[in-house]
Amino acid sequence: MRYISFEYDGRRSWGCVEGDQVVDLGGEDGAPEDLKRAIAAGQLGGAPRGRRIPRADVRLLPVIPNPAKILCVGHNYESHRVETGRDKTQHPSIFTRFADTLIGADDPIICPAVSTELDFEAELAVVIGKGGRRISEAEAMDHVAGVACFNDASVRDWQWHTRQFIPGKNFPGTAPFGPELVTLDEIGALDQVRVESVLNGTVMQSATLDHMLFPIPVIIAYISAFTPLSPGDVIATGTPGGVGAKRSPPVWMKAGDRIEVRISGVGALSSLIQNEGQ
Amino acid sequence: MRYISFEYDGRRSWGCVEGDQVVDLGGEDGAPEDLKRAIAAGQLGGAPRGRRIPRADVRLLPVIPNPAKILCVGHNYESHRVETGRDKTQHPSIFTRFADTLIGADDPIICPAVSTELDFEAELAVVIGKGGRRISEAEAMDHVAGVACFNDASVRDWQWHTRQFIPGKNFPGTAPFGPELVTLDEIGALDQVRVESVLNGTVMQSATLDHMLFPIPVIIAYISAFTPLSPGDVIATGTPGGVGAKRSPPVWMKAGDRIEVRISGVGALSSLIQNEGQ
Repeated sequence: MRYISFEYDGRRSWGCVEGDQVVDLGGEDGAPEDLKRAIAAGQLGGAPRGRRIPRADVRLLPVIPNPAKILCVGHNYESHRVETGRDKTQHPSIFTRFADTLIGADDPIICPAVSTELDFEAELAVVIGKGGRRISEAEAMDHVAGVACFNDASVRDWQWHTRQFIPGKNFPGTAPFGPELVTLDEIGALDQVRVESVLNGTVMQSATLDHMLFPIPVIIAYISAFTPLSPGDVIATGTPGGVGAKRSPPVWMKAGDRIEVRISGVGALSSLIQNEGQ
Repeated sequence: MRYISFEYDGRRSWGCVEGDQVVDLGGEDGAPEDLKRAIAAGQLGGAPRGRRIPRADVRLLPVIPNPAKILCVGHNYESHRVETGRDKTQHPSIFTRFADTLIGADDPIICPAVSTELDFEAELAVVIGKGGRRISEAEAMDHVAGVACFNDASVRDWQWHTRQFIPGKNFPGTAPFGPELVTLDEIGALDQVRVESVLNGTVMQSATLDHMLFPIPVIIAYISAFTPLSPGDVIATGTPGGVGAKRSPPVWMKAGDRIEVRISGVGALSSLIQNEGQ
């Protein structure tokens, strides 16, 4: 099934997508008020009952607007590790984002006034369903509610001020997330799922998930070894080679550009670039 | 004035310290239910009215138990930069903690079963009073509600799995924070405030704040340039030289050790080390 978080008629809600309709599942009669709470309450997967709204009439929010934790994996595809000149590591490289960096699929990515080095990173995001600590690799996929497209758009100069990536990964409005949370039964073998970015119509990144250095179960086991995971937490699983920063000359996104993250079986997440304050 | 967050008689609250008494200011008659909300509501600084509880009877919580953002500065004292072999940088090095790493002054630091390399980092924490984005250095101190002792206890092997510090800084129960939020009028010139760690009675770190490479206003201006700050957000401003990892041989904290962060005019934060699961 496919779930979204949305705003309609001035109200924030969540629901299930059926063709060009959305079944509004939020907040009435004691129903969970947002998708994170619905996941925590184990309320995904049932037969959706609620009013129907044309999908074209809703404004999409980040598919989980309010995750408690967002963890991102750096250098997790061999092609990106090589282009960034990193040594192989025994463990995934983990950094974080604040939830206020997330935007919906209908929102523009904001290029900060203090930088001209805005880059794209197409990623598969995993949304945690069942929380836990010290989750084993064998059980990790049972803790996944579903997946979504994620653009870990990066302000490279700020990312590289020091070795810690946090500043360049935490400008508001830099992480498109959605449009839909897609449950795993909707997707075939994860290994062959393809992650791509397309900038103004040109494919910039393209790789299948079997090129990950640390597969999803390894990432979940590693992260949950040091921090408890909760329903609705988000893990962005890394980006393939081909980012703008490592091209010659570098390719930076600028106002008016359109960047799309496409993931086979999952969806397409297309964002316009807009300058801050415009 | 000096504020604490505490648990008493099964209820979580906050209040003002007066000698050996706590004035309970939480939750009754529409009062803010926690210290973060009190800060946001501009309710610090008034004449405290409420029931009095012996301070000895309350269990201290992290002084802000639920900050939206915790940002930490790495290598911010020259003595620590030199011992870690880092190059000077033009900008502060910033990483993050999740709020579930925080513990109160009465709680033990938990040494994870997966590591034997638990280290101490005595730090002054700044708590944001008035939120904002792009706060100027000149106005930065007007955005500070107060300061507190902070121990950025670090699981070094996990910190150094890759270049990103997040795993080693985010084990639950590794960040004592308190005991009190101290407003700036209680303290003399910040420059001469001394930050120390004392392990089992031996001073391990000692420096005054004028040895910071990036002073507090610079840190606030830098952080708020990339991320909005809100009331109750926490900035741990870095640790002096003398950490256990850089001694020869290294000094690691183990169960039964007692580590104290002492900051002149601010307080003392003493924590017992306890093994996970014990």
